[in-house]
Amino acid sequence: MRIKAVLFDAYGTLFDVHSVIALAESLFPRRGAALSQAWRSRQLEYTWLRTLSNRYRDFWQVTGDALTWSAQSLQLPLTPAQHAQLLDAYLHLQPFPENIEVLRRLHASGVVLGTLSNGTAAMLDAAIDSAGMHGLFTHVLSVDSIGRYKTDPGAYKLGTGALDAPANEIAFVSSNCWDAIGATWFGYRTFWVNRGNAPMDQLDTSPEGIGSSLRDLPQFLARIGA
Amino acid sequence: MRIKAVLFDAYGTLFDVHSVIALAESLFPRRGAALSQAWRSRQLEYTWLRTLSNRYRDFWQVTGDALTWSAQSLQLPLTPAQHAQLLDAYLHLQPFPENIEVLRRLHASGVVLGTLSNGTAAMLDAAIDSAGMHGLFTHVLSVDSIGRYKTDPGAYKLGTGALDAPANEIAFVSSNCWDAIGATWFGYRTFWVNRGNAPMDQLDTSPEGIGSSLRDLPQFLARIGA
Repeated sequence: MRIKAVLFDAYGTLFDVHSVIALAESLFPRRGAALSQAWRSRQLEYTWLRTLSNRYRDFWQVTGDALTWSAQSLQLPLTPAQHAQLLDAYLHLQPFPENIEVLRRLHASGVVLGTLSNGTAAMLDAAIDSAGMHGLFTHVLSVDSIGRYKTDPGAYKLGTGALDAPANEIAFVSSNCWDAIGATWFGYRTFWVNRGNAPMDQLDTSPEGIGSSLRDLPQFLARIGA
Repeated sequence: MRIKAVLFDAYGTLFDVHSVIALAESLFPRRGAALSQAWRSRQLEYTWLRTLSNRYRDFWQVTGDALTWSAQSLQLPLTPAQHAQLLDAYLHLQPFPENIEVLRRLHASGVVLGTLSNGTAAMLDAAIDSAGMHGLFTHVLSVDSIGRYKTDPGAYKLGTGALDAPANEIAFVSSNCWDAIGATWFGYRTFWVNRGNAPMDQLDTSPEGIGSSLRDLPQFLARIGA
């Protein structure tokens, strides 16, 4: 068995969602980090609730809704212009520093790369271009095509469908522990990029490999036969 | 049309999940509130993820798992005995102060009451007894019977099934905004007990009624015809 491709989560894994903190700080001094944290956690919560209740709205909408709630919750007087400015930052999030080099090296060595993300195609295309990752990904897969967010099995199935391969011949990489575990449940060969040295989520299973940055990925891939 | 019954969420609505703070504080001075917050939010997250991925474990297990993660995340050295002590507190959570009086009044006036909860039957029975609510609920409905947590429609369907009535003839009461909205999506007549004056979740819909404590419920019920 050979690993056919490596799929990456986008937000939090390829792109640093907390790179909006600087902008948030400039708008709301000393509250930028709190706004970013609340925004991100509510964004995920809304994806899970909407999928459970079969009430899909795309990730652009959900991200904007979560921002609105988070600003209200922190009692920050967010104007429509500031809302648009913060949301727009999602189209050009900073990549984590080591990512480009690792992705280029894998791509150059012939590994098929892709992204499997909650984001819409338009959001992903913009962020990939902005991060200088254009041309690295053979597959840019968005849950928007099925209207269900991760960890719904239908979301992960986009990868096996696009690659026409079983899950155990595909590696899946995420910095979100819950996402790496969801992908493990689905059957992928999983690697958790645990950048913040967080404890493992307690969900009866664990990703197959763990590293502290994407630099640790090539060794994992070599071990599983990519 | 007459309202046939009033169903209550249990944790956060009938019982104060943060009544564990005092115990947590005694175990970990000045960290009790942080532990309680992390525990509760991770508990909910695990219910959503497990339901999305069809990996049900009961609420006792999930609550314990979330406690383990939260203590690790806050770097609190939780011993097995302390873990058991905190988890055991879930069996005798304090009711919110006004609850008993309001529930007794509704029950005395002939309104059929029930609870529809993520908790297991054993957890619910213990908490109801401990809170002095024994005999008030005609229906004690646990998602454990179907293995899917709220806001999965199957969870809310337990209410219409038990009462043999359509959702729009049943009132549903929750202090968790996401739960009140999930029940609204399902079709119940919903009342959000917004104890903490939180902003409304941004999910394209809103509960039919809102109050600041359970004292505001009878007026809502009168308005909708209970």
